[in-house]
Amino acid sequence: MNDLVRPFGPSQPVVHDWHLDSVVSALHAARADWRQSQGRLRDFSTREFPSRAVLRDVVATLAAALFPMRLGPPGLRDSSEDFFVGHSLAVALDALAAQVVLELRYSARLNGLSAEDSEAQSEARSVSIVQQFAAALPDQRRLLDADITAAWQGDPAARSVDEVLLCYPGINAILHHRLAHLLYRAGLPLIARIIAEIAHGETGIDIHPGAQIGAGFFIDHGTGVVIGETAVIGERVRLYQAVTLGAKRFEQGEDGSLLKGQPRHPIVEDDVVIYAGATVLGRITIGRASSIGGNVWLTRSVPPGSQISQASLQG
Amino acid sequence: MNDLVRPFGPSQPVVHDWHLDSVVSALHAARADWRQSQGRLRDFSTREFPSRAVLRDVVATLAAALFPMRLGPPGLRDSSEDFFVGHSLAVALDALAAQVVLELRYSARLNGLSAEDSEAQSEARSVSIVQQFAAALPDQRRLLDADITAAWQGDPAARSVDEVLLCYPGINAILHHRLAHLLYRAGLPLIARIIAEIAHGETGIDIHPGAQIGAGFFIDHGTGVVIGETAVIGERVRLYQAVTLGAKRFEQGEDGSLLKGQPRHPIVEDDVVIYAGATVLGRITIGRASSIGGNVWLTRSVPPGSQISQASLQG
Amino acid sequence: MNDLVRPFGPSQPVVHDWHLDSVVSALHAARADWRQSQGRLRDFSTREFPSRAVLRDVVATLAAALFPMRLGPPGLRDSSEDFFVGHSLAVALDALAAQVVLELRYSARLNGLSAEDSEAQSEARSVSIVQQFAAALPDQRRLLDADITAAWQGDPAARSVDEVLLCYPGINAILHHRLAHLLYRAGLPLIARIIAEIAHGETGIDIHPGAQIGAGFFIDHGTGVVIGETAVIGERVRLYQAVTLGAKRFEQGEDGSLLKGQPRHPIVEDDVVIYAGATVLGRITIGRASSIGGNVWLTRSVPPGSQISQASLQG
Amino acid sequence: MNDLVRPFGPSQPVVHDWHLDSVVSALHAARADWRQSQGRLRDFSTREFPSRAVLRDVVATLAAALFPMRLGPPGLRDSSEDFFVGHSLAVALDALAAQVVLELRYSARLNGLSAEDSEAQSEARSVSIVQQFAAALPDQRRLLDADITAAWQGDPAARSVDEVLLCYPGINAILHHRLAHLLYRAGLPLIARIIAEIAHGETGIDIHPGAQIGAGFFIDHGTGVVIGETAVIGERVRLYQAVTLGAKRFEQGEDGSLLKGQPRHPIVEDDVVIYAGATVLGRITIGRASSIGGNVWLTRSVPPGSQISQASLQG
Amino acid sequence: MNDLVRPFGPSQPVVHDWHLDSVVSALHAARADWRQSQGRLRDFSTREFPSRAVLRDVVATLAAALFPMRLGPPGLRDSSEDFFVGHSLAVALDALAAQVVLELRYSARLNGLSAEDSEAQSEARSVSIVQQFAAALPDQRRLLDADITAAWQGDPAARSVDEVLLCYPGINAILHHRLAHLLYRAGLPLIARIIAEIAHGETGIDIHPGAQIGAGFFIDHGTGVVIGETAVIGERVRLYQAVTLGAKRFEQGEDGSLLKGQPRHPIVEDDVVIYAGATVLGRITIGRASSIGGNVWLTRSVPPGSQISQASLQG
Amino acid sequence: MNDLVRPFGPSQPVVHDWHLDSVVSALHAARADWRQSQGRLRDFSTREFPSRAVLRDVVATLAAALFPMRLGPPGLRDSSEDFFVGHSLAVALDALAAQVVLELRYSARLNGLSAEDSEAQSEARSVSIVQQFAAALPDQRRLLDADITAAWQGDPAARSVDEVLLCYPGINAILHHRLAHLLYRAGLPLIARIIAEIAHGETGIDIHPGAQIGAGFFIDHGTGVVIGETAVIGERVRLYQAVTLGAKRFEQGEDGSLLKGQPRHPIVEDDVVIYAGATVLGRITIGRASSIGGNVWLTRSVPPGSQISQASLQG
Repeated sequence: MNDLVRPFGPSQPVVHDWHLDSVVSALHAARADWRQSQGRLRDFSTREFPSRAVLRDVVATLAAALFPMRLGPPGLRDSSEDFFVGHSLAVALDALAAQVVLELRYSARLNGLSAEDSEAQSEARSVSIVQQFAAALPDQRRLLDADITAAWQGDPAARSVDEVLLCYPGINAILHHRLAHLLYRAGLPLIARIIAEIAHGETGIDIHPGAQIGAGFFIDHGTGVVIGETAVIGERVRLYQAVTLGAKRFEQGEDGSLLKGQPRHPIVEDDVVIYAGATVLGRITIGRASSIGGNVWLTRSVPPGSQISQASLQG
Repeated sequence: MNDLVRPFGPSQPVVHDWHLDSVVSALHAARADWRQSQGRLRDFSTREFPSRAVLRDVVATLAAALFPMRLGPPGLRDSSEDFFVGHSLAVALDALAAQVVLELRYSARLNGLSAEDSEAQSEARSVSIVQQFAAALPDQRRLLDADITAAWQGDPAARSVDEVLLCYPGINAILHHRLAHLLYRAGLPLIARIIAEIAHGETGIDIHPGAQIGAGFFIDHGTGVVIGETAVIGERVRLYQAVTLGAKRFEQGEDGSLLKGQPRHPIVEDDVVIYAGATVLGRITIGRASSIGGNVWLTRSVPPGSQISQASLQG
Repeated sequence: MNDLVRPFGPSQPVVHDWHLDSVVSALHAARADWRQSQGRLRDFSTREFPSRAVLRDVVATLAAALFPMRLGPPGLRDSSEDFFVGHSLAVALDALAAQVVLELRYSARLNGLSAEDSEAQSEARSVSIVQQFAAALPDQRRLLDADITAAWQGDPAARSVDEVLLCYPGINAILHHRLAHLLYRAGLPLIARIIAEIAHGETGIDIHPGAQIGAGFFIDHGTGVVIGETAVIGERVRLYQAVTLGAKRFEQGEDGSLLKGQPRHPIVEDDVVIYAGATVLGRITIGRASSIGGNVWLTRSVPPGSQISQASLQG
Repeated sequence: MNDLVRPFGPSQPVVHDWHLDSVVSALHAARADWRQSQGRLRDFSTREFPSRAVLRDVVATLAAALFPMRLGPPGLRDSSEDFFVGHSLAVALDALAAQVVLELRYSARLNGLSAEDSEAQSEARSVSIVQQFAAALPDQRRLLDADITAAWQGDPAARSVDEVLLCYPGINAILHHRLAHLLYRAGLPLIARIIAEIAHGETGIDIHPGAQIGAGFFIDHGTGVVIGETAVIGERVRLYQAVTLGAKRFEQGEDGSLLKGQPRHPIVEDDVVIYAGATVLGRITIGRASSIGGNVWLTRSVPPGSQISQASLQG
Repeated sequence: MNDLVRPFGPSQPVVHDWHLDSVVSALHAARADWRQSQGRLRDFSTREFPSRAVLRDVVATLAAALFPMRLGPPGLRDSSEDFFVGHSLAVALDALAAQVVLELRYSARLNGLSAEDSEAQSEARSVSIVQQFAAALPDQRRLLDADITAAWQGDPAARSVDEVLLCYPGINAILHHRLAHLLYRAGLPLIARIIAEIAHGETGIDIHPGAQIGAGFFIDHGTGVVIGETAVIGERVRLYQAVTLGAKRFEQGEDGSLLKGQPRHPIVEDDVVIYAGATVLGRITIGRASSIGGNVWLTRSVPPGSQISQASLQG
Repeated sequence: MNDLVRPFGPSQPVVHDWHLDSVVSALHAARADWRQSQGRLRDFSTREFPSRAVLRDVVATLAAALFPMRLGPPGLRDSSEDFFVGHSLAVALDALAAQVVLELRYSARLNGLSAEDSEAQSEARSVSIVQQFAAALPDQRRLLDADITAAWQGDPAARSVDEVLLCYPGINAILHHRLAHLLYRAGLPLIARIIAEIAHGETGIDIHPGAQIGAGFFIDHGTGVVIGETAVIGERVRLYQAVTLGAKRFEQGEDGSLLKGQPRHPIVEDDVVIYAGATVLGRITIGRASSIGGNVWLTRSVPPGSQISQASLQG
């Protein structure tokens, strides 16, 4: 109905003109310059990137298939649950497979393969990647059940496990991460990153899809959390808002450029709690069952059972 | 969810090309030729016609405002009925007013007015047209109530007045016609015709918005009914499918072109019934309470109380 | 993107006003008069009719479940066909059940039951109606397969059975009819009629949901076909456009009102063909394997094997 | 906002169940029987038919590209017209090409080609088909301009050429037909038929895409018109509602089955007018500048300049 | 139009299969294990949770009803403002009532009531809850007017009160909070939390719906603000981004589990300002008109009029 | 399909009522009080503010026009790229022009101009503003290319420039900012702010549209970044999450109210890096090539080449 509300529309037949021809050709020139600077003269004649909108739907559909009675459609019933799950998986996995082909083809060309070769390889590989992804879903559901239980036990404000699943941004973030991480490990860093950024946009929690995270993981409140690509997190770890598990600064190479691909983020062992605003930087290890206090700035390893607070550091 | 199902999308990076530049310029030339043949060189620099899609929504919204408990939104309640009616009218009338401006401006230019003059006049006139249209709506509701009652009484298959309103294409057609006819009389033949054709497309019933139709009108089945621009129909008239109230053929002027704007369709008096497939042509009069049989071909007036059948004509 | 195109929107802040208060109260008065004339003072405090839009979706979903590889979503595969079918049935049957409750409740109140009684009965009955409807679907699929085969064999222009299912309005109409007829027989004349009118609007073919139609039924072209409530049609019958199987006119009772609910439409036996524009009226019988020519007007029974044409009648 | 109105939703947690498992397996069995009867055991493992919804959008987009100022988006301006046309063509032709691949692949398999062969051929052929289709569009625009002019000249109720294009179902039908006919001739009968049936559903005018129709063609009112596959229509022909240009009945072969693919519909020469309800059957010729009266039933050729009416036939 | 762009769709008829049967049954097993671990064997046979999407629409509709000229539909006019408000309220409150029933029924079952009892109670209670909620809306509008005024006075970058309402995330957050808090107090913690998380996702501001907040409240920038369940905030309080009003850590019970439901967040008295990044923890009191500096870490009460900065603490 | 799932809908015909009449009139009174307190008695009779939803579409469309092969529609090809760009610009700029008129008219009335004067001026000025905006787009594309290159070089986790454009919230934020800043400088602070808040909501990065930012700007992670209205940032500057470039507190005037419009945010020279959580306040200057460490709190200028860390400050 709202679309109707355009009373007294285009009223002034004033001749106005945006000089589109010249803007279009100036933009054409800007694109040509960019493509030349990137060496992209012939290979990218079609827009072929994975789509954020499609991946958003894929994840939402998989989430409903994983938790049909809570994230599925209203009115779903016991007696048709498996039909819903099977149909949703078919739809989501088909769509995912198409996105996987796009990324494989893109990365083949970045690596210099011809169009024909990239075509042939990418479709075959996509089938096997998606089959393995599908087979891994039941275990992801069990991991997420453990995450939900951890949130329910760790937050005095939580009233039920259902409230946790339906409301908590930390659960939304870890659900995206667990799926993104599977795809990252399957050699799809771009799709994985897009999924991670979908969660980042919705929750303010920025987990790089490369991060390895154990069962029973819980982030409370969450806004501002950053977890880097090579971080390794054990079981039953709990984080609060604005915690950073980052790289130390100044990790430059000899020529002054930043080094890529090195282990450079923290290892957090089982049962650690890190309170709001703490910053943990570099390839250090937080020993198991340690507690890192709010706003702490930590750049060295601590042994199991440590209790670190601002005071303890300044003292 | 269906949108997701595009597995293995763009697959063949074959270079293909629709030669768009040449098609676009050939179409440009075809448009230029047409515009020149129509003398439209400067005035129509914007697309400014009333929109079928918007008018479809306007009529649907007005229908809901006229019959809120049956055509309004599910769950509507007594206690909020007037709010719904007032809000729906505001939305629909604002949207209608914008369409009215478009038609007035279009017809002003066809008549040679400058853009400034047409602008000034059309907005002022549109306000007064829509105000009168709005004021006429309650009477249209009463007329439509009489139409519904006539359908309910005239069809042995009808089970309730509600079934008639919700299901019968004849009611849908007369609802559109009564609104279109108001607008036709207000000097908006294009908008009126678009509304008539919306009903024609949905029901197969083709009533020109110029036709004058009395209360208690009922068309059963309806597909293939044609009622011409200058037809005049009395009260409590009943038609069946494929009835034509048309113009006689060969109404050409001296130069061989068809004459426009003359009374050329039948006058049908009160309480007439015309059965399926009957064809009634020319400015003739069907006297009141007559009955015209199925498939009858009639091109002369008949007195009140006539009972015309194929047999009676051939005998 | 089209929604963006509203340049130079609301431009004239002219004070205009549709006098909504007075229009709203005049409409209120018109509704009050109608309700009083219909004796509807208290019972209908909510809008509670079955919804054409929902039923349209229900039928489209059932059609996809009946013919998943041809009417289902693009990209559907063998391996997930049953999941799709089961999920679609669950969704469509749940939605249908809700509509059934609405009709049962409506008809209970028309019959004078209190709100509480109608409530209790209607939910229980709706469950049993929908269960029986669901159980009947596989047989409907087999009937429709026979209809498709008949169309393919009966039309020289048909190139494959798939073209018939995807394109022919006659198949669309009989698909709607077979579902509507099940519901009509289950005591849901309003829902059945709405479904029939959906098909009527899309195809121009008007089959009353009460009509009984055997297997292998085919209507070619179809626009203007009318089949009445009490018609009985055998197996392998073929109709062309604009055929009417109607009631004779003048079936009035002693008081001049039309009689309702009597058998009043033709019986058409097996293997009959009726050509375009033929009109067959009244409770007559067309004997098996007869052929009724185009535009024939027939109001008396004919024995099996008859070949009726305009010439034969006039001769 | 209407979606919000579901107060007091799922209320009775009554255990009800549609026995989906048994319905799904009975439907599975019905499909298996059908496929076996059709010999479709392995080849059709995916749903691969052209889509009515996509083709509807394709035609609407092409119509907007052909007539940008009247069927394009509101607010379109001179200065961006060619950008709009080029972009719309690119979108519509890409989408059409994908549908063409689907039909070619389907028909290759019907003809017994293997999947690999059908794949290779169909993509290459689709590119060349769509290129030729695109190149033919400017001529179609000129043909349609002539159709519009004919309608404007032939109907006393028409007020402007714009009203004709925006409102007349006959113009909508011929626009669909001209595009469908191009595709029919390119060897795509299924896509062509789907487009024809889209127009049939919207207008009640049923033109087989195989029919050959000259310039300046006009159908008034239109509901119930049927034009057969092998009809040949000259220039400046005018038809009214419910005219049939059909095949004679009983065109069976020796084994009793209907013969397919033979010329079997009328030839209508230039400047013929055929009035409402006339039925013209068989491979006969209506000589140029003839006039066929309303409801006439004609199965033999007539010479140029004939004036045929019911009276003239019966006399 | 974008949906059209799927050229050369499903291309490789490669047999691929996601092994759905085994994935579906493994997921079934995972759900069964979870349900058993949670003791949910019979009661939750339908998906019955409040819906985030519906509540998002409810809040947006209520916001438009509260501020019709600024958050309502474009083109709304004085003369139809009350109709819009009344209709929007009817729609939003009906939808809210349905969600309230869902939560009451859910929480009744968590508490062990039978389905019948929970049914009977939840519908009656929902009516009275929504009535009181509706009656409280005008006061909420006045509170929000005070919040807007506070923002306008407190931010040197603000240019008008309208910019504040239309743009500021702090206003969006407090609008959601004031509605969520009403529902929290009415015994609907789940719905309240969902609404709070909608705002959290949109603004990065995380206010637990249990927090009590006085008039004239303003949060500038806002990202990363966390306000806990039992916080109590006076009038005219101003916060900046990344302020935490949280619980002290280590509030465990004797058995090591976290204690739930205790007052554990700060009391902030009237006219306090808390600058960006400040962390205030535990059931402490910030005396009226105090100012807490950026990044300050505060875990003890401060008297009225305090000026706390990092320096003052470290000094 | 999901919309179908409303089984057993409106079930309890309980008479309930939200007392809408009294709520509506209390809201009416609250609005009247507010308008009186703001002195808005007559001028604002229509809702006339720029629309966040429209501006969101405008920016998305411009982004696609700027980067057609990466942010444009899937399947876009070289051969139709310019058509797409031209059409998208036409649509987006027309829509933007309409929003510009709304803001100019709004601000004219705030400044006391009559409706007629504001009308006349605002349409003319809007045309010239949008023309200049359009002409500036190619340069913005080149600036954004430099931003993308900076992100790719500055982040060890980035795998390609395409991943940066498709995924990084910092790029999304600067893309919005560069467009918003053009509009801010053209005298449209409200539209500019709405665009800035769209980015803030999506990314957690809050850049006031007044901030001046040089080429090659990169924000990593980004959540919690705040950049104030009068900040000036040089070329090749890099920020991390939660960095604040803010005003010092207590910038009150003599009467205790905050001073508006003064330069009050930092100047950051070329090649500066500011690490996560750093807070830089007041009109100070960070000299070129300086590095500001994580969590540093800085309120005084530092010379070029400074290396500031928490330790260096506390030491």
